[in-house]
Amino acid sequence: MTQQPTAAMLAIGDELLSGRTKDKNIGYLADAMTLAAIELKEVRIVADDQEAIVEAVNALRARYTYVFTSGGIGGTHDDITADSVSAAFGLPCIYNDEAIKRLAENYARRGIEFNESRRRMARMPEGAALIDNPVSTAPGFVIGNVHVMAGVPQVFQAMLANVIPTLQGGVAIISEAIDCPFGEGDIGTELAAIQKAHPHTSIGSYPRFSDKGFNTQLVVRARERALVDAAAIDIRAMIAALQG
Amino acid sequence: MTQQPTAAMLAIGDELLSGRTKDKNIGYLADAMTLAAIELKEVRIVADDQEAIVEAVNALRARYTYVFTSGGIGGTHDDITADSVSAAFGLPCIYNDEAIKRLAENYARRGIEFNESRRRMARMPEGAALIDNPVSTAPGFVIGNVHVMAGVPQVFQAMLANVIPTLQGGVAIISEAIDCPFGEGDIGTELAAIQKAHPHTSIGSYPRFSDKGFNTQLVVRARERALVDAAAIDIRAMIAALQG
Repeated sequence: MTQQPTAAMLAIGDELLSGRTKDKNIGYLADAMTLAAIELKEVRIVADDQEAIVEAVNALRARYTYVFTSGGIGGTHDDITADSVSAAFGLPCIYNDEAIKRLAENYARRGIEFNESRRRMARMPEGAALIDNPVSTAPGFVIGNVHVMAGVPQVFQAMLANVIPTLQGGVAIISEAIDCPFGEGDIGTELAAIQKAHPHTSIGSYPRFSDKGFNTQLVVRARERALVDAAAIDIRAMIAALQG
Repeated sequence: MTQQPTAAMLAIGDELLSGRTKDKNIGYLADAMTLAAIELKEVRIVADDQEAIVEAVNALRARYTYVFTSGGIGGTHDDITADSVSAAFGLPCIYNDEAIKRLAENYARRGIEFNESRRRMARMPEGAALIDNPVSTAPGFVIGNVHVMAGVPQVFQAMLANVIPTLQGGVAIISEAIDCPFGEGDIGTELAAIQKAHPHTSIGSYPRFSDKGFNTQLVVRARERALVDAAAIDIRAMIAALQG
């Protein structure tokens, strides 16, 4: 059996921790990983703080197949992701020639001065490969298994679209969601028995709250359709019995 | 200068990492910490996996003044937060007498069987203190500096409202709770206008069920008493107008 590829995300930015900005990239990456059959195992959010970024990058890249970061790659003094990722790898943070070329051409075409702040957006660890940015030119980069992308959701998404085809996906997970009109207290014991009877599936129970009180969404996941189907039959029978 | 208190959040749940559920608690906690003058320094999301939860809880509780967790405290087989937090502290995971009492009373009053699945919701580390849950009774808990709360946003928010006054903030937060006999659907538009008219307050709305049906608790928070009072006057006027 092939090892399932795994992933972690590191979202970087003071604004995510102050509440000023509500992250939109974590959920987007989670969906993309599920679609690519790569198991997202952990997410961290840290401040614009080099020590915190270095520690998180090194912890995550050692443990998971892929690491994806968002944020902190702009041109101002508080964008420290490139320096921090370079430090995590023990590499010098340099101006990448190809990135400088792309940025210079872009600003020349638009008649905008290519100043030091804009040049900063070409900085990355020596030896990094570029991630194309069709939205606003300034590239992300890949070093080792770490993919460094922008925090602005439109740019993050465009970069991720260029990264996904380069990743080694695993075996797709089949899943089925079943709406259950009962709360977890009504179904917990029987659901545990169903999970036990279907050991090669993963059955999740997600309580939801509405004006009708608590109900749940039950989700069966497995690598094979037949396994999902078999567990789903038992779950539907449990619900039908409760509806008596 | 007094040391500014710090915080970390740990969101727990496979569904957050698969993309099935988009987290709503991180941004909410971030806003609440900012208002309470507590610096949120780090967030992690991990799966329903005991080893991952234990490692994260122990890393975070050693480093920050407060840790807040969301998710995995229901009554089904995949709810393993209570066991995992107990393991992180090296404490037995027991049925808390007061939690059992509250749950038993709640189910007795509603004529619902207090079965094993529902009893599971009273499990927590020995010596933990309860966090009240005005939405659905089943309490969260505090052990050491770790505050364990529900994942369902309405419940997470109601629990957090009870936790915030117990924390040592950089600057004290004044809050006032107002019982509102109407559901959120009746007051949402006007409450949003009141929030907009009082930008230096944070107004929370927590739905509850009672034998009189659906009602809400409205909580106004701010750094100054006068700000809370001004918003509370508008909220009481709104309720009086609705009562005709």
